[in-house]
Amino acid sequence: MNTAFKDITAECLCIGDELLIGQTINTNSAWMGRELGLCGIRPVRTRVVGDGEQAILDALQSVQTDIVLITGGLGPTKDDITKRCLCSFFGTRLVPHAPAREQIIRLFGQRGVPEPEVRPADLDQALLPESCLPLPNPLGTASGMWFERDGRVFVSLPGVPYEMQAIMRESVLPKLCALFRPTAIVHRTIRTVGLGETVLAERLAAWEDGLGKDDIKLAYLPSPGMVKLRLSRYANADARAAQAAVDRQAEALYGLIPELIYGEGEVELEEAIGERLKQLGQTLAVAESCTGGFLSHLITTVPGSSTYYIGGVVSYANAVKMEELGIPGDMLALDGAVSRPVAERMAEGVRAALKSDWAVATTGIAGPGGGTPGKPVGTVWIAVAGPGGTVSAKSIFTGSRKLVITRASIAALNMLRKQLGRPGN
Amino acid sequence: MNTAFKDITAECLCIGDELLIGQTINTNSAWMGRELGLCGIRPVRTRVVGDGEQAILDALQSVQTDIVLITGGLGPTKDDITKRCLCSFFGTRLVPHAPAREQIIRLFGQRGVPEPEVRPADLDQALLPESCLPLPNPLGTASGMWFERDGRVFVSLPGVPYEMQAIMRESVLPKLCALFRPTAIVHRTIRTVGLGETVLAERLAAWEDGLGKDDIKLAYLPSPGMVKLRLSRYANADARAAQAAVDRQAEALYGLIPELIYGEGEVELEEAIGERLKQLGQTLAVAESCTGGFLSHLITTVPGSSTYYIGGVVSYANAVKMEELGIPGDMLALDGAVSRPVAERMAEGVRAALKSDWAVATTGIAGPGGGTPGKPVGTVWIAVAGPGGTVSAKSIFTGSRKLVITRASIAALNMLRKQLGRPGN
Repeated sequence: MNTAFKDITAECLCIGDELLIGQTINTNSAWMGRELGLCGIRPVRTRVVGDGEQAILDALQSVQTDIVLITGGLGPTKDDITKRCLCSFFGTRLVPHAPAREQIIRLFGQRGVPEPEVRPADLDQALLPESCLPLPNPLGTASGMWFERDGRVFVSLPGVPYEMQAIMRESVLPKLCALFRPTAIVHRTIRTVGLGETVLAERLAAWEDGLGKDDIKLAYLPSPGMVKLRLSRYANADARAAQAAVDRQAEALYGLIPELIYGEGEVELEEAIGERLKQLGQTLAVAESCTGGFLSHLITTVPGSSTYYIGGVVSYANAVKMEELGIPGDMLALDGAVSRPVAERMAEGVRAALKSDWAVATTGIAGPGGGTPGKPVGTVWIAVAGPGGTVSAKSIFTGSRKLVITRASIAALNMLRKQLGRPGN
Repeated sequence: MNTAFKDITAECLCIGDELLIGQTINTNSAWMGRELGLCGIRPVRTRVVGDGEQAILDALQSVQTDIVLITGGLGPTKDDITKRCLCSFFGTRLVPHAPAREQIIRLFGQRGVPEPEVRPADLDQALLPESCLPLPNPLGTASGMWFERDGRVFVSLPGVPYEMQAIMRESVLPKLCALFRPTAIVHRTIRTVGLGETVLAERLAAWEDGLGKDDIKLAYLPSPGMVKLRLSRYANADARAAQAAVDRQAEALYGLIPELIYGEGEVELEEAIGERLKQLGQTLAVAESCTGGFLSHLITTVPGSSTYYIGGVVSYANAVKMEELGIPGDMLALDGAVSRPVAERMAEGVRAALKSDWAVATTGIAGPGGGTPGKPVGTVWIAVAGPGGTVSAKSIFTGSRKLVITRASIAALNMLRKQLGRPGN
C-alpha cells in the first residue's frame, strides 16, 4: 500500500441482540464502511455485541481506531443502554437537551400526538450525556452523539438504517472529513460476466502484476455467474494523477477482456441490456422452462422495462411448449425437452407469438431430481433468436436448484447481451 | 433467562475486506447466529476483520468463547490467507488432503473440465492444515476445517453462504451438539402470512402475556408479507414437559389465528401450496403482469413442482394480455390494465389456455413510475380462478419496486392457499 497517504482508521460497533441471534441482518456496517471508504477513511473492523452493559463497556475500552461509529441501543423500548454505557465510559451524566426535546415533540405532533400526550419514555430520549456534542436526527427521536477522547472520535447513532444514514450524511461525515482531512480515494468498479473468478484471475494475472507500480489495488467481487473488479488508489496530493492512473489501467482492462465487460459501477446486467434495447429501439420476449420465471423476473426488476419487454411464457409442461410455443410433439419425443432443437424452437416460437425483435429461451434440468447420465442435473440449453437468426449453446451449471436457476438465467442474459452487440457496433 | 441451563458461547469471526468496505453485506453471521441459537448455543459477539494476516491473528488470539466460527478468506484467488493464519496460529503446516482433491476434481468434472485441465490454484484448495479435521464441502472446492485447543473449538468455513450453510448443517452443528451437549432448546416455528408484524402483535398481545409463566420466549421473525413466530423454551431436566408446554401454547395460537398459519418449521408458502395441490391431484398456472415472473419463480423453486405446475404467461404488454389470455381490447381501454375485470380474465384466460385446475393472476403498478392519483404505485389486483369460480381483491403495497413485486407475489400465493382450503376440508 502507498505510504504517502494518511491512514485514518475506523471501526463500526453495532449493538443489539437481534443482530447476534440473526433476527436482523446488519446492513448498517456495510453502508457505513462504503461511505467511510469513499471519504478515504479505512474501515478496519466491525464488532457486533449484545444489549449488555459489560459487553458494550469492554468493546469501548478496546477501541484501537481513530474513529468508532456506534449503532443501536438508543430506542425508547430497550432502556437506552448505550447512553448509560457512554455516560459511565466518559464519566458524565445525562442532562436535558432542549433542541432534542423540541424535535421529539415536533415529530409526535406530525403523527397527531399533542405535546401533553407524548409518553415520558419518548421524552427521555432528549436526555443526553453532558459531555457529548448532540447530532440532530431529522427523521427520528433518538439524537446522535459525538465524543472525543485522546484524539479518537466516538459517534453514537440510532440503529434504524434511514435515521443513521441521515445523521451520517448531515453531521458525521462532514465533521470527520473536516477533522481528519483523510486522503481521498479514487476507484472504478468494472463488471464482468461469463468467466469464473479463478479463470478470470488467471487471464488477468500479468496485468494484475503491473498494478503495483501504480499503487493501484484490485479487488475481485464474485457473485453467481459474475465478477466485479474494483480498482482503487489513494489520491494523495494529486487527485487527477491518481484518477488518470486508475483510468489507464481500466482502459487496459477493456483491451484485455472486452467481451466480458457489461458495465461499470452499480449497473446490473439486466439494466445494461435494457439500455441497449432502448438504444436499438427493439423489444424482447422470453420462453423459460428450467429457469421457471426467474429470467423474466430479472428483466422486470428494471424500472421502465415495460418499454422494451413484451412478456414471456413459462413452459413447464410439454403441453405448453407444444401449444403456446409450437414445438412439434415428435421433436420433444425424439430429442427430449432438454435439447438444442427444442431450445431454438422455444426462442423462435415465443418471438413469433409475442412479435418481439429478440427472444431468449432456456430448457434444462434444475434438479435436484431429473438428471440422467447423458443429461446430468445442471444441464441447460440456452437459445437466443433475433433479426439475424438463432444461436444456442449448452452449459452444465453446478450447485443447488436455486443456483442452477440463477446461473442459467444470467448465462441467458449474457448470450442475449453478446447478440445485441456493443454500443457503436 | 432460566438459570438451570448450560451456557455455551460462540463468536462469529468473518474475514473479508469486501465486508468492511460494504461491497458485501454480511448475511453469514445472522444465519449462523440463528442456527446456533436453535441448538442452545449463545452467540455473544461477531467480529469482521479484513484480509490482513495481523488482524486475523489478533482476532484469533483474543477469542473468549467456547466456539468461534470463522468465515471467508478461503478462495483460490486471494491467496488462502485464512489457512496461512490458521497454520501459524496452530503451529501446523499445509498438507495434501486426498478426499478434498477428489471433490475438487469431481466438481470440475461436472462442469466438463477433465482432471488434467484443473488449474493448480484450484487443486491447491486441497492443501489443508495438518492438525485440522477437514470438513467436506458438498457444494464447493473449499473444505471446512475443525480445530480444538484449550477446550475451545475453531471452525473455518468458506464465505460463500450456501457452501458455508451446507457444511454447518452436515458437519459443524451436529459435531458441536455432540461435543458441548448444550441444554436442549425446545421450539416450534409457526409461519404466518397475511398480517404485518405490528397488527399481528396487537392481536396476540393477551396470549403473549401468558407465555412467561411457562418460561416460553416468543420471537417475531418478519420478512416481506410474512411473520414467523418462534416459541422456544430451555428443556433443562424434563424435555417432555418443556415440549408439552410449547405445544400447548402452539395449539392456542392455532386457535387464535387459524387463517394466517400456513405451516411450521422450514416449510415455505410455495411448498405448502405444492403439497396441497399434490394432495388434491390438481394443477396450477399463472398469468403475471406486475410481478413479472417472480410469482412463477417462487412456485418453481420447489423441487418437483413440475408435477403440479403447468406453466405461466408473463403478459407485460397489453398485446400479450389480449392474444395469449384473450382479454378484450375494449376491457383494457375501459377499465385499464390494472383492474378487477382484467385480473379475473387473466386468471380465467390462462386457466383455459393451459388447461389447469387453478390459475393465479396479478396486474398492478410496481413503480417507481406509472402511478396515478386513482391508482398509486403499489396498487395490485390479484385474482384466483378455480373449479368453483373466480375470486379477486385489490391491495396497495408499499416499498421499493422489488418489495412491491415480492409482496404482491406472496399475497397472490396466499389468496390461492385460502381457495385451496386446508387438508381435511
